[in-house]
Amino acid sequence: MHKRLYIPGPVEVRQDVLDQMAKPMIGHRTKDASALQQGISEKLQKVMGTKNTIVLSTSSGSGLMEGAVRCFTKNRCAVFSIGAFGKRWYKMCTANGVPADIFESELGQPTTSEMVDEVLSTGKYDCITITHNETSTGVHNPIKAIMDVVKAKYPDVITCVDTVSSMAGDYIPVDELGLDVCITSTQKCLGLPPGMAIASVSDRAVEKAKTIENRGLYFDYVELVKFVKEKPFQYPSTPSLSHMYALDYQLDRILEEGIENRYKRHCEMAEVVRDWARKNCAVYSNPDHLSVTVTCITNTTGIPFSELNKAMGEKGYLISNGYGDLKDKTFRIAHMADTTMDEIKTLLKDLEETIAELQSKQ
Amino acid sequence: MHKRLYIPGPVEVRQDVLDQMAKPMIGHRTKDASALQQGISEKLQKVMGTKNTIVLSTSSGSGLMEGAVRCFTKNRCAVFSIGAFGKRWYKMCTANGVPADIFESELGQPTTSEMVDEVLSTGKYDCITITHNETSTGVHNPIKAIMDVVKAKYPDVITCVDTVSSMAGDYIPVDELGLDVCITSTQKCLGLPPGMAIASVSDRAVEKAKTIENRGLYFDYVELVKFVKEKPFQYPSTPSLSHMYALDYQLDRILEEGIENRYKRHCEMAEVVRDWARKNCAVYSNPDHLSVTVTCITNTTGIPFSELNKAMGEKGYLISNGYGDLKDKTFRIAHMADTTMDEIKTLLKDLEETIAELQSKQ
Repeated sequence: MHKRLYIPGPVEVRQDVLDQMAKPMIGHRTKDASALQQGISEKLQKVMGTKNTIVLSTSSGSGLMEGAVRCFTKNRCAVFSIGAFGKRWYKMCTANGVPADIFESELGQPTTSEMVDEVLSTGKYDCITITHNETSTGVHNPIKAIMDVVKAKYPDVITCVDTVSSMAGDYIPVDELGLDVCITSTQKCLGLPPGMAIASVSDRAVEKAKTIENRGLYFDYVELVKFVKEKPFQYPSTPSLSHMYALDYQLDRILEEGIENRYKRHCEMAEVVRDWARKNCAVYSNPDHLSVTVTCITNTTGIPFSELNKAMGEKGYLISNGYGDLKDKTFRIAHMADTTMDEIKTLLKDLEETIAELQSKQ
Repeated sequence: MHKRLYIPGPVEVRQDVLDQMAKPMIGHRTKDASALQQGISEKLQKVMGTKNTIVLSTSSGSGLMEGAVRCFTKNRCAVFSIGAFGKRWYKMCTANGVPADIFESELGQPTTSEMVDEVLSTGKYDCITITHNETSTGVHNPIKAIMDVVKAKYPDVITCVDTVSSMAGDYIPVDELGLDVCITSTQKCLGLPPGMAIASVSDRAVEKAKTIENRGLYFDYVELVKFVKEKPFQYPSTPSLSHMYALDYQLDRILEEGIENRYKRHCEMAEVVRDWARKNCAVYSNPDHLSVTVTCITNTTGIPFSELNKAMGEKGYLISNGYGDLKDKTFRIAHMADTTMDEIKTLLKDLEETIAELQSKQ
């Protein structure tokens, strides 16, 4: 039996979108392939609210995150971490010899604009990384407040933002916020299978990267942008054409729904899940900074997650255990991509019943 | 109209294989995902003739090639190049600050065991890269002769081999040859869409990598192997599950055909294409080292490739222009993956007619 996915990626993908993955191959150096990539780029610019160059990468989002710290750090990178995926960004720095420091918030708390201000005021850092939405804690950062400080006081700093689990669900107008590098991935709010990463990148970031050595090749933004601008709309090696077909198709659906409507739907689903959590368990993180795409719930049910997961699995659902230090103490429900309010309500009803059944057996 | 692909990747993919790409998602940290990866690994070990660890990478083959020179070069890497993809390996070294020298053969000529012996006898190199099959010239290297020298005289050197365009078409028994790192990709002889790279890696190579710094993270073989051995059969970030479904399915078909039968079929198709080329044009490369998966043909027809390509396109075919310096001087026909002898014969018949038609108009 297929288990319907309510985990924070991969998400459930609609069959009409999946069907696009099964289309025949074309030559990746043909005009048709360029037209495909150009169409995707233009649609992504609309979804992301940016005029910056769009690069595609056949990889998970981690690939373009690693490329970003290598390409845009000349002096030292400040990694602001609010959980597992912030820590991963720091690990990418050390694995590549990129000088970096990590500034961690307590689990469940955001990065604040004050923290960023204090760190950048030292003058040591020319690149920062921010996790927009941390799936391990269900927190989204106050990105507008952070960027207001960065833009006003530290205009030369390059800002790299991980929106892997929020772009096309949460509201992230890239140019309005002033994000130099905004990275996302197909398998979260975009509602596609995993396998392709996406970034928007500003011209000034690319110009800076050209002055930096040891950038690597596969995730080198200079190389990726060169193939978009000069070829044009080509990809340095052979890309996953299947993902490009599906992405192109799904972007039409997303633009048809409308970015604001999509955001509204995600907010409404988040509210319903949080209400359920407050009534039946507890919401784990800071209530002022809750993610609109995933909720991290403190498991106060007395039922071990493994048992809950097994029982829910038998009913055709997959929800997620806590991540890292929060494993077994919390569980997570994702409400992202093409999931509907009706589906969320049915899930929560079945989850509530399952908990009651398991509690009655104890 | 869909153009049937006779280019050296992406190749034509059978519809039943493509259909596997459209299967619903599963959680990538589930037991089902581990079982999928384990099954793929065991089947790939059979196809590749190895007991080494199999790692998968959501990327093109270039990604794992870049990772290899970073992970396995401690002193200096000797890159043996016979064309565009050898040069790319050298570019990967310089882009990552890996000390390296490139040793290029004339276009159309192989790397010889004598060359490798001479270079390694300097004692400067602890890692070498070999292009097994170079699609830009249609040459395959005498890998057995090369490895006989390396194993006998330089047993500490780590050998990294690019079999992107030959594995599962040509005969490459990894353990018998003694290849430490053997890299391939889905979109060539394996007959799948592009988007996933594969490598087999020896224990001694991984142990060596652990002593090397600045290996990166996404393409770090130590990290990839750790997730296979310790988790077990997991993937460090979110992999392309769609490619894994299709790979798992297609490997069954390949093993059903049998590696030796598959090799024989590739050899027979290659012979027919070479015969056609000798009769109608000329085979570009050294006749003693011709690839069994792609043939590079000197264009002596008097028809510019762009015109030939257009006319063939109208008949539903895509063949390939020459690559790099050989562009417009040569064209290439790939005879790999699930292409049948009948299909190749029909292609050649139509190509011959098309050339005659175009010549008669001149």
